[in-house]
Amino acid sequence: MEPTLEPLADTLIEAPVAEKQGRRSGGRAGRVAVRTAPLAANLRPVRPGMSGGQYSALSEANVLRIHEAALDALETIGLSQAPPSGIEIMTGAGAILGDDGRLRFPRALVEDMLALAKKDVVLHGRDPAYDLDLSGTRVHYGTAGAAVHVVDVETRTYRESTAKDLFEASRITHALDNVHFFQRAMVCRDVVDNFEMDINTLYACCGGTTKHVGTSFSDPSHIAGCMDFLHTVAGGEEAWRARPFVSNSNCFVVPPMKFAEESCITMENCIRAGMPVLLLSAGQAGATAPAPLATAIVQAVAECLAGVVYVNAMAPGHPAVFGTWPFVSDLRSGAMSGGSGEQALLTAGCAQMHRFYGLPGGAAAGIADSKLPDMQAGWEQATSNVMAGLSGLNMVYESVGMHASLLGFCMESLVLGDDMLGQVLRCVRGIDVTEDSVSLEAMREVCLEGPGHYLGHSQTLSVMQTEYIYPVLADRTSPKEWVEIGKPDLVQKAIARKNRILDQSTVPLFDPVTDAALRAAFNIYI
Amino acid sequence: MEPTLEPLADTLIEAPVAEKQGRRSGGRAGRVAVRTAPLAANLRPVRPGMSGGQYSALSEANVLRIHEAALDALETIGLSQAPPSGIEIMTGAGAILGDDGRLRFPRALVEDMLALAKKDVVLHGRDPAYDLDLSGTRVHYGTAGAAVHVVDVETRTYRESTAKDLFEASRITHALDNVHFFQRAMVCRDVVDNFEMDINTLYACCGGTTKHVGTSFSDPSHIAGCMDFLHTVAGGEEAWRARPFVSNSNCFVVPPMKFAEESCITMENCIRAGMPVLLLSAGQAGATAPAPLATAIVQAVAECLAGVVYVNAMAPGHPAVFGTWPFVSDLRSGAMSGGSGEQALLTAGCAQMHRFYGLPGGAAAGIADSKLPDMQAGWEQATSNVMAGLSGLNMVYESVGMHASLLGFCMESLVLGDDMLGQVLRCVRGIDVTEDSVSLEAMREVCLEGPGHYLGHSQTLSVMQTEYIYPVLADRTSPKEWVEIGKPDLVQKAIARKNRILDQSTVPLFDPVTDAALRAAFNIYI
Repeated sequence: MEPTLEPLADTLIEAPVAEKQGRRSGGRAGRVAVRTAPLAANLRPVRPGMSGGQYSALSEANVLRIHEAALDALETIGLSQAPPSGIEIMTGAGAILGDDGRLRFPRALVEDMLALAKKDVVLHGRDPAYDLDLSGTRVHYGTAGAAVHVVDVETRTYRESTAKDLFEASRITHALDNVHFFQRAMVCRDVVDNFEMDINTLYACCGGTTKHVGTSFSDPSHIAGCMDFLHTVAGGEEAWRARPFVSNSNCFVVPPMKFAEESCITMENCIRAGMPVLLLSAGQAGATAPAPLATAIVQAVAECLAGVVYVNAMAPGHPAVFGTWPFVSDLRSGAMSGGSGEQALLTAGCAQMHRFYGLPGGAAAGIADSKLPDMQAGWEQATSNVMAGLSGLNMVYESVGMHASLLGFCMESLVLGDDMLGQVLRCVRGIDVTEDSVSLEAMREVCLEGPGHYLGHSQTLSVMQTEYIYPVLADRTSPKEWVEIGKPDLVQKAIARKNRILDQSTVPLFDPVTDAALRAAFNIYI
Repeated sequence: MEPTLEPLADTLIEAPVAEKQGRRSGGRAGRVAVRTAPLAANLRPVRPGMSGGQYSALSEANVLRIHEAALDALETIGLSQAPPSGIEIMTGAGAILGDDGRLRFPRALVEDMLALAKKDVVLHGRDPAYDLDLSGTRVHYGTAGAAVHVVDVETRTYRESTAKDLFEASRITHALDNVHFFQRAMVCRDVVDNFEMDINTLYACCGGTTKHVGTSFSDPSHIAGCMDFLHTVAGGEEAWRARPFVSNSNCFVVPPMKFAEESCITMENCIRAGMPVLLLSAGQAGATAPAPLATAIVQAVAECLAGVVYVNAMAPGHPAVFGTWPFVSDLRSGAMSGGSGEQALLTAGCAQMHRFYGLPGGAAAGIADSKLPDMQAGWEQATSNVMAGLSGLNMVYESVGMHASLLGFCMESLVLGDDMLGQVLRCVRGIDVTEDSVSLEAMREVCLEGPGHYLGHSQTLSVMQTEYIYPVLADRTSPKEWVEIGKPDLVQKAIARKNRILDQSTVPLFDPVTDAALRAAFNIYI
């Protein structure tokens, strides 16, 4: 099969981190090595930003029912506890402050603000090659969360997460083709001062990858200092504002139907600083959100629509991601269950509401309840990730590495998740039906003239790299081969790949002058 | 929360095997025990035969293109190597035998036979409670395959599968709520005589469960003896023909576009014996089927349409399952890859073709390439199973227990698969949007009058058992609780559940007189 592969081999590009593996040269192993070498971006079977939307968790009629109920909730229940600045902004646009202190939103106001809201948001990478186009049903997978533990798979223990852990997760993400952005996934628990934590979070994230970064500032008063950091990285405020490469995740509401005062002010500051925002409503069905899945979506949509009013009344067309993130409780215990089928449905239903509004949307998928990267983790992460992608969710947050219902982050799971997401992305890409692909020419040749099989047929060779994706770690050997190669353990392979990536990555990804400036201005723990 | 649960507890029904677990009584554990006790069938959050179809891997236009291409293939390429009896049957109906020995099918013939084909097939269980209604997009999950190994998870070895293994897999399946039928998953390699293997396969399958059983007879000459066996189990031929509880999987074609002579004659014999048949086309994309996914589906559809002509020309309306099972090759090595995204897409695309024809359909999903029940196995099995279900595939074959791309069957994986399929089925059920579920009454109470959360709200309690599914083995503890309970290992829990099921199951599920009759007439290895 080699001849037809040569042209492909000529177009190889380097992956962000060229992982040099000790492969036997020549023979079958050599051929496999050539075939598994990275393809040019335009020839790859999967890419960031492929279009989903083949799956609709809700019928059109039910989308409308949820939309109507959300408008009704905004008009009649409204949200309490907006900060004075938010009250001024939103009443200025037409929201009504009741005697009970709740802001209510006439539906005409919501519709006007939906019309103003930016539809074609791009989340920039520090390297433009990693820009994320959130239009339509384009799908991107990445990390997120606020795990307080790192999972040590070798000792099966949960330990406190540190700035160094976050940095390593960022560096690993930089090397993974199928993880498209890096949002802060862990809390730097070794950094005690809250401002320093925000700064070190930025350093860890931006220092490890030039993909788009997400963070979540802890206090409105930190924004100015954090912007100094980001301007230094960007090379000035103008450069930052032209291509803001960090977005801020704002838990601007505390469900049910309450604004989070401090987070709202943080959001206002981020908007003034030119930072894209994630309007995050993270209710928990059965606890802080209604238990029926449809009503949990209604509440999340209502809360995020309030956020759309807030943002667009303040800064029309400011880039914002519609962040309906309803979570699931295990109603027996009240504990969160991110790995449940109910969670997958909530996320898929939300993605469909985003499509309905034509707004860039994000939600959580890929969370494992399992403590370790075991079979349970695999089925939990895959179910919600594939449903999110097929729903056309623009930003699939928390899609890799997350265990114990968001309490633990696992580096080996992140590495394995890259393989999982490769297969998931293949599913999102779907079945290409073209004149060529339903042509019977090859079938005619093979059946009527040829050898009676398609092995080595030019049609087969033409699609083997562009339509089929091959895993990096996942095992496809026969039982016999598996014995011959020593029955490799999946988690051990993940540890090895993790170490290979960390050994070979260049860090930090700041030029020395910038790095020195950052270290002079801030207390960097890394 | 107990008061509202008492009425539910009163309606408890026994699962097929009541698994008595050593639970601490009283307190939280006691409450959890009540809440996890089996619910009455009509109250369960998931059931066999729920309707999928929310996901469409193919657009309507592309479904038509594939249909047209398949008709074209039948008309112009046709199939070779039909047995003389099949040639007689099919040319009698209007198929044309060419000088090249190929049977070609005018499209009018295919359309006429599609009109005759039975749409509302029921596959019976020996116990009518397990009947499978294959109408519409009703989804059922079960086993299948011809694995030649059993996976021993404790020693991480693959050993030859035996009749006893098959019997145990059947017994375990009988106890699993979310595995709806038991098709022969392993070859009884300890039974050397082929007729005795067919008989012992029937004994192992039917002796372990009263759910619907699938088998695959190895030789046309065995059918008469096997029907004696089945008549004995049924209590006579009339009883058997009234409710045939075993279907036969016929690999009636050897792709590409060739009939399998002997298997065709076996199929004819099964049809005469009143046995439902699975028209199985198991090409391998890139090897025995075209590599582009769309063309692989075209070929599988064409072959199964030839099967529809065959069956309905011989016995109009005979129950048959449209069994497009295209598999995937890893094109680097030629090895099968059942765990790939491409496989999930092939199966989903096929399910949509079944919907188009309105015929009961089956395909393969849930296959792991991984050798063991690890994280890779989890994501591989979940991805294709959830996509198959959301596609509305009537019969999801090979959905649990299958490893090494069908070469190995794993009992622990079967047990874990029950949990996985529970979550998958929850996804298939979808989001209920009713007047109640989008009512804002609860939200109003909670936000405007109540405690500000939904915990313990009557709405929450009303859905906690009927809309949420809880896993049996999967872990949802917090990291702290997980340490307290000794960091249980998932596979060890599966071993324990497997042993509990086997310890407590009554076997064989034949009355003593029948069992004695079977043992007198046949050489039973079990």
